[in-house]
Amino acid sequence: MNYFSSDFKLGILGGGQLGKMLLYNTRKFDIYTCVLDNSNEAPSRLACNKFVKGDLMDFDTVYNFGKQVDVLTIEIENVNVQALEKLEKEGVKVYPSAKTLRGIQNKATQKLFYLDHNLPTAPFSRFAYLSEIEDAIDNGGLSLPFVWKAAQFGYDGNGVKIVRQLSDLNDLPKGECIAEQLIPFKNELAVIVARSSRGETKTYPVVEMEFHPEANQVEYVICPARISPEVAKKAQEVALKTSEAYNHIGLLAVELFQTEDDQILINEVAPRPHNSGHQTIEASYTSQFEQHIRAILGLPLGNTQNKVGGIMVNLVGAENHTGPVKYENIETIMAMEGVTPHIYGKKETRPFRKMGHVTIVNENLDTARQIAEEVKNSIKVISQ
Amino acid sequence: MNYFSSDFKLGILGGGQLGKMLLYNTRKFDIYTCVLDNSNEAPSRLACNKFVKGDLMDFDTVYNFGKQVDVLTIEIENVNVQALEKLEKEGVKVYPSAKTLRGIQNKATQKLFYLDHNLPTAPFSRFAYLSEIEDAIDNGGLSLPFVWKAAQFGYDGNGVKIVRQLSDLNDLPKGECIAEQLIPFKNELAVIVARSSRGETKTYPVVEMEFHPEANQVEYVICPARISPEVAKKAQEVALKTSEAYNHIGLLAVELFQTEDDQILINEVAPRPHNSGHQTIEASYTSQFEQHIRAILGLPLGNTQNKVGGIMVNLVGAENHTGPVKYENIETIMAMEGVTPHIYGKKETRPFRKMGHVTIVNENLDTARQIAEEVKNSIKVISQ
Repeated sequence: MNYFSSDFKLGILGGGQLGKMLLYNTRKFDIYTCVLDNSNEAPSRLACNKFVKGDLMDFDTVYNFGKQVDVLTIEIENVNVQALEKLEKEGVKVYPSAKTLRGIQNKATQKLFYLDHNLPTAPFSRFAYLSEIEDAIDNGGLSLPFVWKAAQFGYDGNGVKIVRQLSDLNDLPKGECIAEQLIPFKNELAVIVARSSRGETKTYPVVEMEFHPEANQVEYVICPARISPEVAKKAQEVALKTSEAYNHIGLLAVELFQTEDDQILINEVAPRPHNSGHQTIEASYTSQFEQHIRAILGLPLGNTQNKVGGIMVNLVGAENHTGPVKYENIETIMAMEGVTPHIYGKKETRPFRKMGHVTIVNENLDTARQIAEEVKNSIKVISQ
Repeated sequence: MNYFSSDFKLGILGGGQLGKMLLYNTRKFDIYTCVLDNSNEAPSRLACNKFVKGDLMDFDTVYNFGKQVDVLTIEIENVNVQALEKLEKEGVKVYPSAKTLRGIQNKATQKLFYLDHNLPTAPFSRFAYLSEIEDAIDNGGLSLPFVWKAAQFGYDGNGVKIVRQLSDLNDLPKGECIAEQLIPFKNELAVIVARSSRGETKTYPVVEMEFHPEANQVEYVICPARISPEVAKKAQEVALKTSEAYNHIGLLAVELFQTEDDQILINEVAPRPHNSGHQTIEASYTSQFEQHIRAILGLPLGNTQNKVGGIMVNLVGAENHTGPVKYENIETIMAMEGVTPHIYGKKETRPFRKMGHVTIVNENLDTARQIAEEVKNSIKVISQ
């Protein structure tokens, strides 16, 4: 098929920030794009050829949207999978496939998939209701502490909690969940794998999440991770194996733990461009967004290596600030070497809301890390 | 002024490819943009917040458009300058200024400006009508060969001709023109200077145009130029001095000749992002488009150095092909290391029409140059 012609149409389910960054690259290749999103204010609305407002979880809406396009992809997992199944049967190319998406949407199913495919992950138990966890503890089938994860609709730290005592269960959603063994780890890593509809695969360098020593929040995504080549290789192999097990087409972001004894365990996966790959825009030969497009269109994959070291800092709303947003000291950080802010354009800030990200690139990763800290200490996302 | 808020509006005169690439960066910074263009099919229409169709040469159209924005810039020189003058008087920030634009729009005025400011350029004579050239030759005031240049509205090689014999004058436009001494040169170079509304200046590395040995057409833009550090320094100094002489704000692309005896002469300038800077998207720490926005908004300028070596190849329509465009072997070039095609989305090709460009980046510039040649030999822009 000739993608570089007006006959071809690419559909994207979801019109958020990831979709927006994806669209920069469709413009570069002059690919005709249609976007479906729940909100008329979706950031992707600018830069797509055709925007449709509609419910991403509604069968008819997704089906009717998908019928208009040749290739359909997502930038958010919570979409109607039944509609995708029907579209696939009727010849629309859907990447990720309905089957993969269904297997990933539910974290219990995701974990069972790893077990079935001999992919390393922390031991866990699955529960249909939260109340069953209490029963399991009572009868000795589960012991504290453990990590509770909602099976569905968790995002950005929502839907995950370390349970150290019974009372920690009090405020949790009552539905399907898993209890995962709490495994001490040295590093939280991630690897993005690109796999094209022609079967070509490439992995990006391993990235490392550096946590704030007290707040236990990811402060920096560092690429490449400061780990041994052996551990990096193992992490890339696990990620590649995961992508192949899913027979996945497009990007698969694989979040990993490096345990104290250098085992690599899969935490979770996302079948799309991912927060852990934002630094690829400035640091890599091929950004994750361009790569996703190359992969789902069956174009040759681009070079995944870094041109320079890259660090990503999330821009989140400051505590105690709710209201119309103001970016304090943004000019200060723009004066620093190799610093690019990405402002998502949300009008209102609130504590910890993700409002943008900043990339810092430098030939020397240690220098980039120092500048990243200056960035973090300078910019504030506050209310006006 | 807070640019990162919905109160601020940036206006762009012209909605072509340069505007489109400029808009990617306004989106990254979430800057509200308005675009005026003659055509409803303008590539910038997607990705701006507000699109206005209207004649860029019409006083009222440009004035009314400009009144709606805080900062006004251009992506094409041929706009109504009287309207810009009135807008400036009424407080709109116009970059480039009406005065600079007026001085640049007319090539005779441009050349006189260089003389007045001791900026090096090839000797020339100015003529109100083409017929005066013949008179000058007749009375010995001008001798063949020389370079004829139309004073106004030349573009892409149009409006420039080497006159070796009287009959070469036959088909030329009859209006205002200059006759420039034909000076043999070793290299055609270009330097982009960024100068911000706060007076900060930065120059990009010197680029080199490599010509086809027979066709006398620019084949490759190579960054950095393969010239001595002394010549590079001299070229950057001339470019910087030119930008300062114009008191210019924004990007100024300065096209230069390196003569046989290593003099640097100004050929012409463009007060905006420029074809000679397209490789900055992939090769530089800061793309020329982001830099133009930083400059006109008075934000700190970004690093102009290369991350890696960059080469740009123009994608022009093949000879003997007119009609709906097809990009032959685009997948072949996308499989090559560090190659990014930029397709402009024009529906129809014709011989030598500029249909896009391809960037090739590599740590090693010689390798990039080899790959660029493979690109050039592979891709064909033909009709379907």
